[in-house]
Amino acid sequence: MKKKKSNQLSALEGLGSEVVKQINKGKNPEIPVPIRALSNVEFDEKTKTVRLGKKISARYFFNVAHAKKFLQTLEVASISKNLLKEQKHASLRDVFYMAKRTIPGTKVNIVDEQTESDSVLEDLELITDQSREQLNVNANKNGSVAGKVVIEDKGDTIDWGRLGSGGWSIPSNVENIKFKKISAKYILYMEKAAVWERLHEDKFWDKQNCIIMSSQGQTTRGIRRLLQRLTSEFKIPIYILTDMDPWGHYIYSVIKFGSINLAHISEKMAIPNVKFLGIHTSDIEKYKLEKHLIKFKDTDLSRLKQIKEYAWFKDNKQWQKEFLEMKKLGAKAEIQALSSRGISFISDTYLPEKIKSKEFLD
Amino acid sequence: MKKKKSNQLSALEGLGSEVVKQINKGKNPEIPVPIRALSNVEFDEKTKTVRLGKKISARYFFNVAHAKKFLQTLEVASISKNLLKEQKHASLRDVFYMAKRTIPGTKVNIVDEQTESDSVLEDLELITDQSREQLNVNANKNGSVAGKVVIEDKGDTIDWGRLGSGGWSIPSNVENIKFKKISAKYILYMEKAAVWERLHEDKFWDKQNCIIMSSQGQTTRGIRRLLQRLTSEFKIPIYILTDMDPWGHYIYSVIKFGSINLAHISEKMAIPNVKFLGIHTSDIEKYKLEKHLIKFKDTDLSRLKQIKEYAWFKDNKQWQKEFLEMKKLGAKAEIQALSSRGISFISDTYLPEKIKSKEFLD
Repeated sequence: MKKKKSNQLSALEGLGSEVVKQINKGKNPEIPVPIRALSNVEFDEKTKTVRLGKKISARYFFNVAHAKKFLQTLEVASISKNLLKEQKHASLRDVFYMAKRTIPGTKVNIVDEQTESDSVLEDLELITDQSREQLNVNANKNGSVAGKVVIEDKGDTIDWGRLGSGGWSIPSNVENIKFKKISAKYILYMEKAAVWERLHEDKFWDKQNCIIMSSQGQTTRGIRRLLQRLTSEFKIPIYILTDMDPWGHYIYSVIKFGSINLAHISEKMAIPNVKFLGIHTSDIEKYKLEKHLIKFKDTDLSRLKQIKEYAWFKDNKQWQKEFLEMKKLGAKAEIQALSSRGISFISDTYLPEKIKSKEFLD
Repeated sequence: MKKKKSNQLSALEGLGSEVVKQINKGKNPEIPVPIRALSNVEFDEKTKTVRLGKKISARYFFNVAHAKKFLQTLEVASISKNLLKEQKHASLRDVFYMAKRTIPGTKVNIVDEQTESDSVLEDLELITDQSREQLNVNANKNGSVAGKVVIEDKGDTIDWGRLGSGGWSIPSNVENIKFKKISAKYILYMEKAAVWERLHEDKFWDKQNCIIMSSQGQTTRGIRRLLQRLTSEFKIPIYILTDMDPWGHYIYSVIKFGSINLAHISEKMAIPNVKFLGIHTSDIEKYKLEKHLIKFKDTDLSRLKQIKEYAWFKDNKQWQKEFLEMKKLGAKAEIQALSSRGISFISDTYLPEKIKSKEFLD
């Protein structure tokens, strides 16, 4: 861990000493920053992730259009350096308040809005090749996990299978967790905490020898990194369970391919080998859920159109067929519709059948 | 626990056998249901909670306006009875899907919208005098806890002080948790998960001998019940930490006095002895946060006006003074503004000072 820290520190110190070197040479100090704009975002067919292109711009100190952003970049780099030295973590909001100070001798604040400090922090991720989490700045905390795993975190040994009905609360930053023992065969990630509670009560992870993980709605960065670490370090397959609707498909899409917002960090966040377990359009007839279809609203239909056109779905025959079927149905369906077949139908029948037959969308 | 279960079962069976008795007597079956409408909600000065009044209406089977709701009530009672017998828990959404079935020989569903099953479930809480959680129907799951407490849940022994950086993930239903060992002197509940992570990293609960608990935004029923159980069973004081804004005050208000929506269940949910630790208007000058005030928008001002008029705040001089000061400032402030004074200022200075001086709003 110590060695890792010094990698991050040296990346930040490298940035600083490069600026000092330029000043000593009497040059206009500059920081090269890869461009984070849609024009520089591409879908990498080889790695199957949304990535940033190679366009770079320079940020100059002696340039009225750049000066403030230049200063902000160094300020946030300095805040991150202090956090690393003190071994403390801050939220984005904390970083904003720390950077919001008046430049001595002026009435100008270094930042006035959080979007400013957020933006330079994203630049810093690129400049240093370290994720925000590695720079000790945390994202939101959300989500629970249970299953056949023992970890060590902050000196505590934690058995994810011995935490009662609550499970382990997933922290925003999972970089320093050590995995001590993993006997789970796969990970089931679902978008709904209520479904997680259903499976947990049914001891699904125990019977199926797996890990169950959930947030509520969008998947936090902490969860995405936890999923990524588990699958890349231990080769555990990941299956995604969401509602049958374009919003559920987007949750899957972000986990698998990355997102446009975070294209610059795809390498650390995208997980190309996850698979979509359900709810599939073919499940509707198979599991007699016709009665529980919910008619599309206009927003659903337009979202479906958008998603269908994503570069990573466009040439995927399986998915295009799925989108077409959904359009034909003109309706969506929720995971909990399975409860109409019995409260534990999902644990006893639906999931075991799907996992056994390996009928996933990929 | 077994005894408790049979209390709930017998309440539900009592409802059923009463209906059967009326049928056998050739009467029009009726169910008496306390009225849940604003006209029947009052603030009880003695218990200091928002409560339902004494108005009751009858629901008749042979009444075209009542028949469907009558049927829905019995259907949901029957679903709950089955859950209790199977010792399983369902979410509100699950209950909806289980109740959404076609009445044999007709084309009519027992329920078509979740609002229908939710509504009769709230009636059932009143009819049986059992909370939704006691009827094995869970609310949303959210939030984390850490501190000097050991519990037993589902056969697992869980030390809230030995769970790494994540903490224990609070389940939606905390009715069956057993508290094995509690050495914490108070509970600090905060509205923001990021602040919880700050305090947790600083080992605040260890140094201060307390419990730290958080959700994100509104406080779930699971958290409110957990707070209530801890304070009523072990006489542990609870302090609330929110942003200085009407939304933060409302979070406090709901925890302390209950809410209009849940007036029928105030006894089990409201916690009259909680105190508001901060952020207070007086903290702004004292802790040099003037720079970080955020100007009111119209929505903030109108929310402030509403809250000021609540029956439980109206005659409270301390709070009226606070609302007036806020109006004068014309601005709000966030907990994280304290980070401008240093990342651990909140743990090292602000909170210890507030708790020592006992400067709370009550």
